[in-house]
Amino acid sequence: MHTVLQPVGDARDRTGASARVAIAGATGYTGQELLRILSRHPRVTIAAAMSSGSSAAASRKLPALARVWDGALTPLAPDALARDVDVVFLALPDSAAAELAPTLVDAGVRVVDLSGAFRLRDAGARARWYPETHRVPADVAYGLTERERGSIAAARLVANPGCYPTATLLALAPLVDAGLLVSGADIVVDAKSGVSGAGKTPSERTHFSECHGSLSAYGVFHHRHGAEIEQGVGGAVTFTPHLVPLDRGILSTIYVRVAPGTTEEAIGDLLERAYAGSRFVRIVGSALPEIKHVAHTNFCDIGWRVDPSGRAILVSVIDNLLKGASGQAVQNMNVMLGLDEATGLW
Amino acid sequence: MHTVLQPVGDARDRTGASARVAIAGATGYTGQELLRILSRHPRVTIAAAMSSGSSAAASRKLPALARVWDGALTPLAPDALARDVDVVFLALPDSAAAELAPTLVDAGVRVVDLSGAFRLRDAGARARWYPETHRVPADVAYGLTERERGSIAAARLVANPGCYPTATLLALAPLVDAGLLVSGADIVVDAKSGVSGAGKTPSERTHFSECHGSLSAYGVFHHRHGAEIEQGVGGAVTFTPHLVPLDRGILSTIYVRVAPGTTEEAIGDLLERAYAGSRFVRIVGSALPEIKHVAHTNFCDIGWRVDPSGRAILVSVIDNLLKGASGQAVQNMNVMLGLDEATGLW
Amino acid sequence: MHTVLQPVGDARDRTGASARVAIAGATGYTGQELLRILSRHPRVTIAAAMSSGSSAAASRKLPALARVWDGALTPLAPDALARDVDVVFLALPDSAAAELAPTLVDAGVRVVDLSGAFRLRDAGARARWYPETHRVPADVAYGLTERERGSIAAARLVANPGCYPTATLLALAPLVDAGLLVSGADIVVDAKSGVSGAGKTPSERTHFSECHGSLSAYGVFHHRHGAEIEQGVGGAVTFTPHLVPLDRGILSTIYVRVAPGTTEEAIGDLLERAYAGSRFVRIVGSALPEIKHVAHTNFCDIGWRVDPSGRAILVSVIDNLLKGASGQAVQNMNVMLGLDEATGLW
Amino acid sequence: MHTVLQPVGDARDRTGASARVAIAGATGYTGQELLRILSRHPRVTIAAAMSSGSSAAASRKLPALARVWDGALTPLAPDALARDVDVVFLALPDSAAAELAPTLVDAGVRVVDLSGAFRLRDAGARARWYPETHRVPADVAYGLTERERGSIAAARLVANPGCYPTATLLALAPLVDAGLLVSGADIVVDAKSGVSGAGKTPSERTHFSECHGSLSAYGVFHHRHGAEIEQGVGGAVTFTPHLVPLDRGILSTIYVRVAPGTTEEAIGDLLERAYAGSRFVRIVGSALPEIKHVAHTNFCDIGWRVDPSGRAILVSVIDNLLKGASGQAVQNMNVMLGLDEATGLW
Repeated sequence: MHTVLQPVGDARDRTGASARVAIAGATGYTGQELLRILSRHPRVTIAAAMSSGSSAAASRKLPALARVWDGALTPLAPDALARDVDVVFLALPDSAAAELAPTLVDAGVRVVDLSGAFRLRDAGARARWYPETHRVPADVAYGLTERERGSIAAARLVANPGCYPTATLLALAPLVDAGLLVSGADIVVDAKSGVSGAGKTPSERTHFSECHGSLSAYGVFHHRHGAEIEQGVGGAVTFTPHLVPLDRGILSTIYVRVAPGTTEEAIGDLLERAYAGSRFVRIVGSALPEIKHVAHTNFCDIGWRVDPSGRAILVSVIDNLLKGASGQAVQNMNVMLGLDEATGLW
Repeated sequence: MHTVLQPVGDARDRTGASARVAIAGATGYTGQELLRILSRHPRVTIAAAMSSGSSAAASRKLPALARVWDGALTPLAPDALARDVDVVFLALPDSAAAELAPTLVDAGVRVVDLSGAFRLRDAGARARWYPETHRVPADVAYGLTERERGSIAAARLVANPGCYPTATLLALAPLVDAGLLVSGADIVVDAKSGVSGAGKTPSERTHFSECHGSLSAYGVFHHRHGAEIEQGVGGAVTFTPHLVPLDRGILSTIYVRVAPGTTEEAIGDLLERAYAGSRFVRIVGSALPEIKHVAHTNFCDIGWRVDPSGRAILVSVIDNLLKGASGQAVQNMNVMLGLDEATGLW
Repeated sequence: MHTVLQPVGDARDRTGASARVAIAGATGYTGQELLRILSRHPRVTIAAAMSSGSSAAASRKLPALARVWDGALTPLAPDALARDVDVVFLALPDSAAAELAPTLVDAGVRVVDLSGAFRLRDAGARARWYPETHRVPADVAYGLTERERGSIAAARLVANPGCYPTATLLALAPLVDAGLLVSGADIVVDAKSGVSGAGKTPSERTHFSECHGSLSAYGVFHHRHGAEIEQGVGGAVTFTPHLVPLDRGILSTIYVRVAPGTTEEAIGDLLERAYAGSRFVRIVGSALPEIKHVAHTNFCDIGWRVDPSGRAILVSVIDNLLKGASGQAVQNMNVMLGLDEATGLW
Repeated sequence: MHTVLQPVGDARDRTGASARVAIAGATGYTGQELLRILSRHPRVTIAAAMSSGSSAAASRKLPALARVWDGALTPLAPDALARDVDVVFLALPDSAAAELAPTLVDAGVRVVDLSGAFRLRDAGARARWYPETHRVPADVAYGLTERERGSIAAARLVANPGCYPTATLLALAPLVDAGLLVSGADIVVDAKSGVSGAGKTPSERTHFSECHGSLSAYGVFHHRHGAEIEQGVGGAVTFTPHLVPLDRGILSTIYVRVAPGTTEEAIGDLLERAYAGSRFVRIVGSALPEIKHVAHTNFCDIGWRVDPSGRAILVSVIDNLLKGASGQAVQNMNVMLGLDEATGLW
């Protein structure tokens, strides 16, 4: 029986108390980042870090975390998770998360799922892109923190957004909300990602000698993050991801049409209002942002340019492993527990 | 007085004979590539390689060329150029080329200019983007070889295209010619370049620690290559270049609209026809091209995808220093001299 | 008159109180890291961050620090420094530090100097390698924290070690102390550094296109860090630094001779004892360390191998900007102020 | 029955005639380089390019070679090899080469083997490092071209050297030959290699995200190339390879002791004499060589420094896929066929 989980209201009052968290999939890149962040988080105790491999094998994979997090890795044991932790992070393949998350929610554990299994609300779209998702719990929130704080605070399951959608929607969604985009005009999202976004499993595409000195587009007209961006925008988007020879970071270049005469200032005001009080979104204006400025941080930097005819270009950058995955996951956990959302993320 | 230059008709007949060429600006990246290619070219003798610096200083900069080209560098001396060379390559800043090229043409030397000074035909556009160009000789050709062989063969001055326009126009122009693009629809060119495109002079933007692990857009709505692409397309284009952390190569992602129902095969047929017999353009279809496949070659690889609604994406890749600069320059010289255009370029 | 500085004994007792610090040279790579670390340091207030450039120009250079440190940069003003700060960090060229540090010490401020000006104790060696150092204050400590805690705690001026010596001496010095090295045998230090070690000023050597895909040795028999390593070892060392195409990190491969039959375990025991309680040194044994494991941390990881004949190889890695510069500087400040030496460094 | 192979003396006379060659293992990195070089070689016809995979699968792996080499890949068929080719290149794993090479030699085909199977002459060393080598044909030459031309010209089987030994021995062996090294003093070889040296098969160690921004030593006291270097030197060598984040190139830093007072000029004279007439070895002196100068070429550049006490450091660089593998293999074939050794290699 699960008795440990505290309701959100309670958490707000437990000054100094620790939530107990578990990480399933602790040896992948996002799992390691979760360990790194949560081991220093002042309001959290890592109750368990699990891996599908054996403990010894998994431990050998984490030399970078020695003295950062010195706990033992345990085999993935869903039952144990349900017993005495408040929040479980799932850093697992889509199919494993699709099966595990509903069970955990049923058992009363709150879940932050870093997979894509529960990101799409529309059943048809989900059946197409995530056929392994058979059951969706109630109280699911889409974890784009700055835009969904209310639903995240109340959710049992937070579907942490994809890396490309995070970078893209933080820049684009406020313009859509404000009705600033010319109706019917194409929206083109040309996104570039570092190789860590492809995960930790070696493949021909992520072999050093294939990536170094090279650059390629992939998944044209057929990438699941395209559907997620379209959900966030409420309409068609042309999305092309590219693999670039760097480790961490995403830069999304977004081409839209606004009414002729719309000024750069007007867009700036809109974005400033949208993110007033959001410390992790930095509005940098016409000085376009660079990946280097956000790497190893939870920031999203947004810049833009407009020409008199109404062509507008937004550029948004994040660290794909932090704001695009584990950083935002912890930010969401903070919101779920009623903590300051930046806790443990500086 | 200049007596050496052979008319084109003649060159065609001089089996085995050598043309005499000179390189102005031989120590920059494109100048070094010219030295490398021309020193192995079976139908060419390098009569002079010039640099604005002193010979000794310049020599020290070219250790990679020892035993490839062992001639001495000489100070830049326009008069000497006019005397006994057939073709001069200008690998100089725009302002120097703008001044030198007309003088050389007047003296009877044929010129391949790698700068931007003579690329734009429209006087207004040229005045805006290349104000240092005051006089344009007659018989100027735009050196996008595969599309301009006739005018290049007859030209006194060949304006070698920019690297971004080369990659972009080889993919895009045949579709424009064939009337395949939906009239009035936006054309978006999102281009990514390695850092060698920025030249050999150190700067904050090209400092290793600023580029490595980073990625940035620049020149939004304000890059001269945008005007050059618009000239090639005959209409408005939204062009955004990006700097990526690799040395050599450009990948241009081009977003257009074609009539709904247009097939990938139809575009393939069109491109195959446009480049039948053009050995340096490889039509790779839906298997999208990568920079690694063309680096250190004079190839341009073109791939594409279309969806049923008529959205089409073309991806074109080149080596910016070869097909995007020095390789194409030699290809143009070959055409000017009546040689097989691939001579010296394998 | 200076009244703010607290004696070390006092600092130990000021629970929760903040020391006031200043950073001279805040826009270079090490200066930016100092800003990043100290802005989150729970026991420190940044009283001033100075740059030799104008405030506006300098601000434009620090977009990555927005919302991390939002103070204004001020022109470098030594007099102001002396008035109300406890510790000044000098992240300046050697010549500027050589002049400024003694003045500040005279005025009663404690100084952590990241330049090389005061690292060499021997006057002859210092005159050769740092001729701009004319006056050395009393109470100078060499800031290799794990080996000099006592003298650092009492010092008025801490000479923060060079990046190569930090990586090399942490591995090598305990073996020397223990008399483990065969007397008279060569010590070879083959060190490899990322490009950020060369600083922020663009140069031909640090131009992206020159470094990417390349590798070079430099400073053979003539690098100031060689003298610093020899000081730490108390004898001759053959030291060759190399520039490798990555941004952050140093790997030092150290070749020594130990008595035949010395075991890997014996060396491990020795190093474990030497660094018992030193949280930033991780003894990793025969699983040799990699730069990736320490990048963006203050760790130094040390591994080694020995063969039966007594040949031993030690491999030591650090992040050159953190343990090799700004991280160790803050660690030293913590020791000076009587704080836990890891404060602000996780 | 095999009738095509021409004796060496004959080949010398066949002006303009073509030798027929085959490549076994044509889809790996060294196999692709062989295809690239030999397809342009003026005196060679590629009779067959073989791969252990199916033709279709293999073809898909070689997009970069379209229009460079347009032949079909065929399954590896040793019998066919023996029938009508003059020279076979084996770009195969050690075990496959160990088995195939003697069979081919028996059938009268000459072989250039890029594996390590036949590099070690000493039976004991070979049994330790290459236990899969059971039979060694007569007339085996060690293919370090510049030092073994005579035996290569006469050989039935050329064991192409390893990449690290090529870079190291070209610099070191002439000093050993001349008796310049202090007897009994340690020789330390600290070598750094790009990742393509690890081949085309993805692995954790060659995963982009593991290599990028990192650096590591490996194979300490236990790398087969160490034994090969010791064979070339005739004595003990301490050899440590490192993996650096670049694609192509090796830099070997070699630490030796010479008699005190030996000058840099003396070493230069020695090396100049050793390589007089060897166009691919460039003696660059105290201006130490860089990988960038030799990447994508068959050059080996050698530099050095000496101090008055007799410590000497040599630095040698090559492209590991060319001079360190396929380029040297073709150079050896040229020697075997009596051609100019540089044919097809500029």
